[in-house]
Amino acid sequence: MRYLHHFWLCPFSRKIRVILGEKKLDFELVFEKFWERREGFLKLNPAGQVPVLIEEKNLTLSDSNSIAEYLDEAYPDPKLIGSEANYKAEARRLVAWFDNKFYDEVTFPILEEKVFKRFMSMGQPQTEVIRAAKKNINYHLEYISWLIDRRNWLVGDEFSFADIAAASHISCLDYLGDIPWNDYDTAKTWYVRVKSRPSFRSLLNDRILGLNAPSHYANLDF
Amino acid sequence: MRYLHHFWLCPFSRKIRVILGEKKLDFELVFEKFWERREGFLKLNPAGQVPVLIEEKNLTLSDSNSIAEYLDEAYPDPKLIGSEANYKAEARRLVAWFDNKFYDEVTFPILEEKVFKRFMSMGQPQTEVIRAAKKNINYHLEYISWLIDRRNWLVGDEFSFADIAAASHISCLDYLGDIPWNDYDTAKTWYVRVKSRPSFRSLLNDRILGLNAPSHYANLDF
Repeated sequence: MRYLHHFWLCPFSRKIRVILGEKKLDFELVFEKFWERREGFLKLNPAGQVPVLIEEKNLTLSDSNSIAEYLDEAYPDPKLIGSEANYKAEARRLVAWFDNKFYDEVTFPILEEKVFKRFMSMGQPQTEVIRAAKKNINYHLEYISWLIDRRNWLVGDEFSFADIAAASHISCLDYLGDIPWNDYDTAKTWYVRVKSRPSFRSLLNDRILGLNAPSHYANLDF
Repeated sequence: MRYLHHFWLCPFSRKIRVILGEKKLDFELVFEKFWERREGFLKLNPAGQVPVLIEEKNLTLSDSNSIAEYLDEAYPDPKLIGSEANYKAEARRLVAWFDNKFYDEVTFPILEEKVFKRFMSMGQPQTEVIRAAKKNINYHLEYISWLIDRRNWLVGDEFSFADIAAASHISCLDYLGDIPWNDYDTAKTWYVRVKSRPSFRSLLNDRILGLNAPSHYANLDF
């Protein structure tokens, strides 16, 4: 059996869950309190971060980009990075946009203040940090809208790693009720299409103890 | 002609310079004060970051990982990501280690305090931030030593993207005199081998106005 060490609201873990779902690969989730830096977990990934995929007995993979590329090569049906060089470059550029820029400007500050501080008993959330990060969301939703006005999915005709990365980050924030959907119809339409995919279903069923999602979180027609 | 928009002490720009050098591809450097967010540059890369590679008239690439993967596929001689799936996964894991973890813990805080604040007139460097980042270097030099005790290069037998990523970050810090080489013989031996490659030569010839490198910076036998 394949095991994925993950944390519920980690966007990088969510990416791998969706990719495994798209490729119809069975796996079991292992909940990892990565901040406790458990010795057995550090042996799997010395960086101490989720996700970690135990693909088989002697093959442990870490870093979501490395895992994603591995899975796309080992299980190419469906191919999620594309097949043509320029398309792949655009997919990887957009994955980096969400995994680096969006994460630094939006996902990380909001998760740290609202979620990690609670789990790690690090004190009260700083409201000014949350406010600044929520302001940053607008620019990114505008960028998604701009792309979707021109393309079927974020990169082009096909659903790709870029859609999965973007939706994974957004789903974490949506769980916390932090996406201003009413102002972004085009981005919302795109997200409804992502949410409707069977690979996304398990994310929408996540319920985190002590953190309730808003009622629209799992609703496909919100 | 191929153009690379870069900043001298940007480790991600340095990665692409070395990759182009390894593949013996001609290019011209365009110095980009990315923090000024020049309109023409934002049209090339809306993320506003270097490096940006203008590969040909209608093909502009950004994000160092996307550029690196593109170049390795388009110009596979020599292949720098490897060819076997597990090897590639390890190469990508280590690239992420240096481009994310090392960058967050070491490169970024030191560059921000010592270099960006000066260029952007953002006030005095905070010595406690520099001190904490310099302390973090040790753990990473130990990890490089641990790997090099077991492998010829960081991933395995071949020189790869992982060596290029690691050495690009380290070369920026070495320019600032911040690597405690005397305590890390094994890591130093590895870095001397990287420095000796012709692809690395142009980085060692960099001289940044108002910032002098220590005498050992360009010395191959330091």
